Formats: sequence, C-alpha cells, structure tokens
Amino acid sequence: MPTVHVNLGPRSYDIEIGSGTLRDAAKLCDAEQDDAHTIIITDSNVAELYSEPLIEALEGLGCEVAALEVEPGEPSKAPDVAAELWEELLDHGADRKTVVVALGGGVVGDLAGFVAATFGRGLRFVQIPTTLLAQVDSSVGGKVGVNLPGAKNMVGAFWQPTGVLIDVDVLQSLPEREYRAGLAEVVKYGVIQDADFFAYLETNVEKVNARDSAVLTRIVERCCRLKADVVEKDEREETGLRSILNYGHTYCHAFEAATGYEKLLHGEGVAIGMMCAARLAERLGRVDAAFVERQRKLLNALALTMEVPDVDHDELIELMYRDKKVERGKLRFVLPTRMGHVELVRDVANEDVLASMVPD
Amino acid sequence: MPTVHVNLGPRSYDIEIGSGTLRDAAKLCDAEQDDAHTIIITDSNVAELYSEPLIEALEGLGCEVAALEVEPGEPSKAPDVAAELWEELLDHGADRKTVVVALGGGVVGDLAGFVAATFGRGLRFVQIPTTLLAQVDSSVGGKVGVNLPGAKNMVGAFWQPTGVLIDVDVLQSLPEREYRAGLAEVVKYGVIQDADFFAYLETNVEKVNARDSAVLTRIVERCCRLKADVVEKDEREETGLRSILNYGHTYCHAFEAATGYEKLLHGEGVAIGMMCAARLAERLGRVDAAFVERQRKLLNALALTMEVPDVDHDELIELMYRDKKVERGKLRFVLPTRMGHVELVRDVANEDVLASMVPD
Repeated sequence: MPTVHVNLGPRSYDIEIGSGTLRDAAKLCDAEQDDAHTIIITDSNVAELYSEPLIEALEGLGCEVAALEVEPGEPSKAPDVAAELWEELLDHGADRKTVVVALGGGVVGDLAGFVAATFGRGLRFVQIPTTLLAQVDSSVGGKVGVNLPGAKNMVGAFWQPTGVLIDVDVLQSLPEREYRAGLAEVVKYGVIQDADFFAYLETNVEKVNARDSAVLTRIVERCCRLKADVVEKDEREETGLRSILNYGHTYCHAFEAATGYEKLLHGEGVAIGMMCAARLAERLGRVDAAFVERQRKLLNALALTMEVPDVDHDELIELMYRDKKVERGKLRFVLPTRMGHVELVRDVANEDVLASMVPD
Repeated sequence: MPTVHVNLGPRSYDIEIGSGTLRDAAKLCDAEQDDAHTIIITDSNVAELYSEPLIEALEGLGCEVAALEVEPGEPSKAPDVAAELWEELLDHGADRKTVVVALGGGVVGDLAGFVAATFGRGLRFVQIPTTLLAQVDSSVGGKVGVNLPGAKNMVGAFWQPTGVLIDVDVLQSLPEREYRAGLAEVVKYGVIQDADFFAYLETNVEKVNARDSAVLTRIVERCCRLKADVVEKDEREETGLRSILNYGHTYCHAFEAATGYEKLLHGEGVAIGMMCAARLAERLGRVDAAFVERQRKLLNALALTMEVPDVDHDELIELMYRDKKVERGKLRFVLPTRMGHVELVRDVANEDVLASMVPD
C-alpha cells in the first residue's frame, strides 16, 4: 500500500493510501489493545455509507466503539457543536486511552480534530478523509478548528493525527460537483510545486474524470507528499513557506465571503482564484500568456468553471483586505514564476488585482 | 528581581517575582513594539483593583489595549464563556500579533489561557496571577482549560505562557480565607519536594501569617522553582512524575465533588487531603506518627482546618474511583516516605483509605 510518511519528529505519522482499505483503519486505532476505545465522529451522510463497516472492523478486534453524528455541512464547524461533542465524549467515558476517528470530509476532520486536540488536553486522533478535497488537503498538516461568525477557522489548534487512512474507493460515491471541486486543489499542487505532476494530470485527464482507482491512488499519494514536504518545513506556519499552499486563495476567500459561503464550493473558488492569480502573474511579467492558457486548459478539461462570481470587484478587493493573511495592510499574493514554482509577492497594486479578475 | 526560568526548549519562559511590580508586565507584552496589541482578560473583582494601572502602563508604551471581564468564580471556567471571549477577541481585531494577558486567579488564568491557546490556533499569552494559589500553582506549567458539567478541567490544552509576572503586593488585598487556602499548596511543595523549605515555613509562620513581602517573595520563588523542576521533566504529564504534584488531591477532588464545589476552596480541600494522605502513609508503614504530627502542626499554625467534610465515607471512596487519574480501576495515591519525598503508590485497599479519613 503506498504510504506517505510525514516527518514531524515526535509528531510524525503515516498516511496509508489504498483502494478498498477502509476496514484497515481499525489497526490505526490500536483496536486490538486491551481497553481499546474508539469514538468515531462523522456526519449523517457519510455515516449511512461507511460507519457500519468501520464499526464492525473495530468491534471485530475487540474494541469498544461509539459513533457520533453531526449534521453535514459547514454550519457544524462551530463552537457550540464542538461543545456538544465534548459532552458526548464525556458521556461515552472517553479518557486518555480513547482514539478519536474523523470519518468524513473537511468539516468533520477539522471539527473532530479540534475536539480531539482539546478533550482531556489532547486525545489521539485518526483521520479517514472521504472527499477528494480532504484526502489531498485538509487531512494533511494538522490544522484543526472551528469557525466563528464571519471568520472561518478562527479557533483551533495544530494537532497532528497519529495516522491517516485514505481509501480512494470512497470517492466513487462522491457527488460530481464535490469531486470536481477537489480536483482544483489537485491541479494547484502541480502549479505550485511539481511541473511533472501537472503534465501527468494533462496526460491522464480521461482517467481522472472516470475516477480510475489506480490514477486516483497515484494522485492522492503525490498531493499528500507535496503537502507534507511543505508542512515538514513549516509546521506551525511561522516561516511563510506554508503560505504557498494558498495559491489562488486570496481571491477564493473573497469570492466565498462575497457569496455568503453558499454558492461556491471551496475548490470551485480555488479554481477561479488560480485563474485570477495566473493572470495577475502574467500582468506583472512573471509568466507568459502560454502559462495562463495551459492552466486554463487543464482546469477546463476537468470541467471546472473559471468565471468570477457576479459581485462588484471593488467589494472583492475590500474583502481581500479583511482576510487574516493580510500583513500590515498590504495585499500579498502567491504567484507563479514558471510551472511548478511560486513566490510570495507583497504590495500588489489594487488596479492590477482588479484587472486580473477580468478575463482577456 | 528574583526570576525563575522554566526551561522547556522553544517554549521556555521566565517567571518574574517582585513586590510592587505590576506595571512592569507591560514589557512582557512587547508593548513598545509597532502594532502592539494586548487584550487583558480578568474578572470584575480583580478589574476594580488592578486593571487601571496595567492599562495605563501598556498605553504609556503606545500599546493598543482592551480589557474583557468575566464574572468572578468557577462557573466562568466554561465552554460558553470561552466562546463569548473568542467572539470578543474577534470584535477587538485580535490577530497573530496580539498578546492575551490573564490578570486574576486560577479561573481567569485557565480560561484566558485556553482562549489564547485556541484563538487563531494560538496567541502569545502572559500570566499575571493575583491569588497565592495561582502564583504558586496554576500559573506554572501550561495547563489551561475549562470545565464540563461534572468534570473539572476536562477540555483544554498545554499552552505555555511567554512570560509570567508575579507581584506579591497584590496578595495584600486577598480575602483571608483565600490566602490561607493558597498556603496549603505552599506546604505541599515542602512535603513532596523540599524538607528545607518545609522547615523554613515552620520557622517563619508569623511572618507568613502577616503576609510579609520579603517572606512571600521567597516562598513564591521557591514554589515556582519546585513546580518548574517537575514540569520541565514531564511537561505533558506523560511519565507520571508530574503526578507527585497531586499529593492530597485524590482526597481533595472527592471532597470537592461531594460538597458540590461550593463549601470548600480548593486549597482547603488540599489541606484536609494532605492529612488523610499522611495518615494513609503512616498506616502503610511509610512514615511514622511524628511525620503526621509535624505536618498537622504546620497546617494548624497557618489556620488551616483539617476536618474531613461531613459526607458518607463510602460515597467519598466511590467518587475517588470516578476521578480521571484512576488507572485501570485502581486507586492510586501520592504518599510520603520522608519529609521532602513522595512516591506514587498503586493498588491501595479501600479499607485503608477509609481508615485514613478518620483522625486518631
């Protein structure tokens, strides 16, 4: 089984990637130990599809298991839902031996991770991401947390899992739109870190669109490795390196905020934001028109829309200034210099940002 | 100014102990930096006495300051109060440059520390403990958190402050009962780690009772050093060493739970618990009667009550089994072998525990 080792000293862990491997997660939970105790946190959609086999596998090893469900969707990533889960953990007798399993997409992973990071001052935590976005992004890196009204991810912690199991087979049940949105982050890794991987995606568009298991395994493995490379060097987002993962995200966060976090999936916003960032880079003379076209072509082949939402562009600029990544009142952008390489660019003029949102 | 350096690698910090030094805390907040931003979290009792001078000192260095108040008392150490504070921090524009100051006793320190540990995935945090208990105990070691119904400190983190300022002058305004309760923890450090310090307390009982500044400075410095020695070796409570700080606490937690956390101050419960633990140690042949009498005499000279609360003793035993420190269903106790030295004793018979609660 392909394994990505995330090297973070005493907080190191493995990401095991496979096809049809969901039940293997039981081993990651130390389910065969005496006194083994696992609490699964999931949402009601995912529970229906995947809770049962996981519970069976855990119980089969003699582990005591409980499964807690939250409502699907972003509103569950909130302090009051975390507080309910804390009390449920207490009711289920969770203590230092308990392993918390996040079974679901990014919302479940971030929420369950935050609950694990804080209950009893920190419980062990296993991630089983079930969306493409979570598999290639939010399950790597240890960022966990909940939203405050008007401020995404504002409360949280860095809390590394003790293990991550990725079964690409679960992606077969993912709604088409969510699958596509996840692909935007996949393309991002190619642009920011790995030109060969970008070319691999170009060559394999059909198999990607057909959700071919072997191709998905390879894609997820490569994305996890690329993200792990960054996280290993800047675990707590202190050196600025980790910010390269935010390619397209300054725009995306503004689009999401302007449309009330309802119209756009995160990955859809990233795809549009990447196109704006590429045009901005071209305008600033960092890449040529062929680069922009190459990125557009791949995103298009993966059926991602690249139209900027119908919101006043000056309002979008204002929203960018409110983003928590703004430094001393200056907008900064992650911009490519060539395929597979980006740089952090500070102090970009508003007029260039405005122009980048209008396609040629 | 006496300084205790807490050596925790990249999380190291200093505890500065002095008399009349409250305003010096401004320096610990980097208040003279450009963009300096401090948010003080305190309770309404402490605010009345000490917020103003601190705010003045911070503003005098050009720092932007806000002070947030919670209700005094244990009920403020709760998830919903933390959630309110998160939103208030957001409203006050807190970001990565913000320093959170805990100005108050243990409740404020634990609550503000938890808010600092989680807002924006971790803000810098300065402790200004204003009770004797907080000065010698909860401000050292990085344990922060809130209570769940029926489970104290069940949600939290290990989050070290960037600095601690202790002004022993603030103890002059402490109600008599709270001051005495804090002394129980002071005596504890002598019993568990330092026979010379225990003797120092015996020699200086009058000055301790008179709250003599020089004696208090020396006491607080020694207690912080002793606790820091333990925390440096077992920061995250993994090796078991840190549990020696729980001398008397297995009893105390049962007394507190049985009396609804209302009748007894924590330190009062510790004093009674220490007497039970000493009698248990005598019963198990670990210390002699003279040891028990010596401890009783010092606690008595500091006007601490040693009467076990009027609760059925079998109920107390049951409560002990529910404590989160119970390991695989066995009660364990921290028991002295001589003055200045304790050991963790597992598997004590219930009848010995029952007998230890009845004074000779």
